[in-house]
Amino acid sequence: MLKVNLWEVRTAKGLKLEAVAVMTGVSKSTLNNIENGKTSPTLANLEKIAKGLGCRISDLYDSEYK
Amino acid sequence: MLKVNLWEVRTAKGLKLEAVAVMTGVSKSTLNNIENGKTSPTLANLEKIAKGLGCRISDLYDSEYK
Repeated sequence: MLKVNLWEVRTAKGLKLEAVAVMTGVSKSTLNNIENGKTSPTLANLEKIAKGLGCRISDLYDSEYK
Repeated sequence: MLKVNLWEVRTAKGLKLEAVAVMTGVSKSTLNNIENGKTSPTLANLEKIAKGLGCRISDLYDSEYK
């Protein structure tokens, strides 16, 4: 079961979506769609988010095929 | 620099795109676009590809933020 952890990582850092959008260059609506499971994040956006939040791409998801 | 290794993994297994499409449930055109760098793979498709090819998601890409 694929799980995306963006909401957990963002809230653990006490950040609002607006701040993450600025820090990562990924739009607030895309971040919101990822958090709500409406869209599956692209690898390119996962890298931007990891870079912007100072974490690893692997921190942002869980999968038995990780 | 984000690098997707689908072509390398596929060809190392001696598989054609058609076969990988059947094995993963990801369309041939999407696989082709991923290999040609036209689209960044979604995490959902990366999981399908890893599952279908019997490898790990992390085998399918390289990034300093891995």
